[in-house]
Amino acid sequence: MYKHEYLFDFTNTIFQKMGCNKEEAYSISKVFIAAELRGLSSHGMMRLKDYFELWKAKRINVKPKIKIIHESPSTAVVNGDNGIGMVVATKSMNIAIEKARQAGTGWVSTSNSNHFGIAGYYSMMALEHDMIGICMTNANPLVAPTFSVSRLLGTNPIAFAIPAGKQPPLVADFATTPIARGKLAISEKKGEKVTLGYVQDKDGNPTDDPGILANGGSMLTLGGDFEHGSHKGYCLAAIVDIFSAILSGANFGPFVPPSVAYLPLLDKKVGEGTGHFFGAMRIDAFQPADQFKNKMDEWIETFRNAKSAPGKPKILIPGDPEREKEELLKKNGITLIPGIIKDIKEIADYFKVEFEEQ
Amino acid sequence: MYKHEYLFDFTNTIFQKMGCNKEEAYSISKVFIAAELRGLSSHGMMRLKDYFELWKAKRINVKPKIKIIHESPSTAVVNGDNGIGMVVATKSMNIAIEKARQAGTGWVSTSNSNHFGIAGYYSMMALEHDMIGICMTNANPLVAPTFSVSRLLGTNPIAFAIPAGKQPPLVADFATTPIARGKLAISEKKGEKVTLGYVQDKDGNPTDDPGILANGGSMLTLGGDFEHGSHKGYCLAAIVDIFSAILSGANFGPFVPPSVAYLPLLDKKVGEGTGHFFGAMRIDAFQPADQFKNKMDEWIETFRNAKSAPGKPKILIPGDPEREKEELLKKNGITLIPGIIKDIKEIADYFKVEFEEQ
Repeated sequence: MYKHEYLFDFTNTIFQKMGCNKEEAYSISKVFIAAELRGLSSHGMMRLKDYFELWKAKRINVKPKIKIIHESPSTAVVNGDNGIGMVVATKSMNIAIEKARQAGTGWVSTSNSNHFGIAGYYSMMALEHDMIGICMTNANPLVAPTFSVSRLLGTNPIAFAIPAGKQPPLVADFATTPIARGKLAISEKKGEKVTLGYVQDKDGNPTDDPGILANGGSMLTLGGDFEHGSHKGYCLAAIVDIFSAILSGANFGPFVPPSVAYLPLLDKKVGEGTGHFFGAMRIDAFQPADQFKNKMDEWIETFRNAKSAPGKPKILIPGDPEREKEELLKKNGITLIPGIIKDIKEIADYFKVEFEEQ
Repeated sequence: MYKHEYLFDFTNTIFQKMGCNKEEAYSISKVFIAAELRGLSSHGMMRLKDYFELWKAKRINVKPKIKIIHESPSTAVVNGDNGIGMVVATKSMNIAIEKARQAGTGWVSTSNSNHFGIAGYYSMMALEHDMIGICMTNANPLVAPTFSVSRLLGTNPIAFAIPAGKQPPLVADFATTPIARGKLAISEKKGEKVTLGYVQDKDGNPTDDPGILANGGSMLTLGGDFEHGSHKGYCLAAIVDIFSAILSGANFGPFVPPSVAYLPLLDKKVGEGTGHFFGAMRIDAFQPADQFKNKMDEWIETFRNAKSAPGKPKILIPGDPEREKEELLKKNGITLIPGIIKDIKEIADYFKVEFEEQ
């Protein structure tokens, strides 16, 4: 079991060794550890190796000059200068928050960025300012639109964080596919089949093979098939892609660059890097913050008190499972599987930094 | 077959007879006919009776004093004074557009409104201003959150309209359930069963009975069940509810008032009327509009050229089916079923207005 503070300090050291300045290494490590603590380990320490390899391959810029290239009172377009996604995203979300302070709301579309970890983290940055936070990103194309076998979209997550009063904030953070990419990988490693409705084979037939992506298969959008509303999941993924990439000038859809060094860069570019979209809405641009928070408490309590179907768990408020996980892991520590520890030790050795196996 | 101009003029006359001024009757009729032309007849002429009955029951205000009750440079909260939804929504969206003109984006949360027809109509109002339009509304509670049998949410639609260049605009307008409420009603009338994944019975068991809502059943959120991501559909419906009702001070979730006169008003109120949310984003608050539109053309063409699965239709761009329907119905006219013609004639007789059966 690793204390989260230990993993934070280690990650912080590694990114400084890669050349990030203190502030940036801190931002990156915050997102890594938030992913681990919130139970989203597929975006946590497991990813350190990917960033290390991208850095070794000089495919990521650890000294980015992140710039606002266009703006209005409530909007900005940011160019991330190929920086590490967490650095670019933290800066972009802070710009959205600053815009909201002035104009009531702030909206930032960001190009020339990279994989940024968990979308929920950035949406939650708004909470301490009594703002609603929103974050989206496009991602590597693995998902086929309704009726298609072409991989044109990423799992394109959407995150919202909404402040409450006595109740914890409502935090929704979800891929626009039935499941996240990482869950397929886990089933594949375990040799398990998956439920029908997650993936299709290269001809568009339903399949329970989680490894089908390696054989021309694709992930399905939320809804699964047309009859069950997959076109609505496709709409959502499309909007995320357009807000993240077309508004900013990043690569869209099938042209989003791979987030790992073992995949070659694509031949065709239609923009710069990966795209994100951020929003911040000041609560008191709508009504007094305390009044809103009281009402959110009432909303949350109404939903908590809903009747469960026989044999089903209690009704959850978006963000409940992740918050409960965080409380647990902060107390008990974080478990890393041997494969990840091995990767981390390799990185530690490279930089002649200590990593204590626990 | 009715010419859409004929139905527009008739609707326009009826709402003026009810006491709406010319501008308001025009707004309402525009939305009615847009719904018919876009193939969403469940929100078209079929609804005239509902508004007529609400008016007769004095449950709807045809002389509303719609007011901005709070604002910032990019936001406003509007109180619709219990006006007809189309009047309140058209005014609210115009405020969002005006805010966007000044601040880059405009966001309006509206309380004390009523059923407003199709969300897509208001999002499309932004297009002629080279803006992206967004619209959401909460609705009568028929939908249970994941694991629950309590009807706490409406079908809460989300609409986005995004301008393009040579290509038609991308218009997404979808309920956050696998299907719209109207489709259940149609299956029920035809005596047909529905696909599993749309509704559940009062104990949360899957059922193919489209009439189950009358027996304590509920609609499911997009995703259908937890395994297929229904919690993501629940998140979406929750966000629509919170943006529409908590930001504005309208009734949320289970307290949204019924949109038909034959259902009694609820005993408990937690706010005023039904709530909506509107957004307008000026394209050139992000980048020159022409550049954006060219890029949208490239996006749309990329998706149009995607490979279909064998035996499946061509890949659609959100808004394609509705636009194709509109072209067809503008040319061929609109068919009304006998039951609706009967209702309309009753209304025509009441006001001593002619309605010519065709």
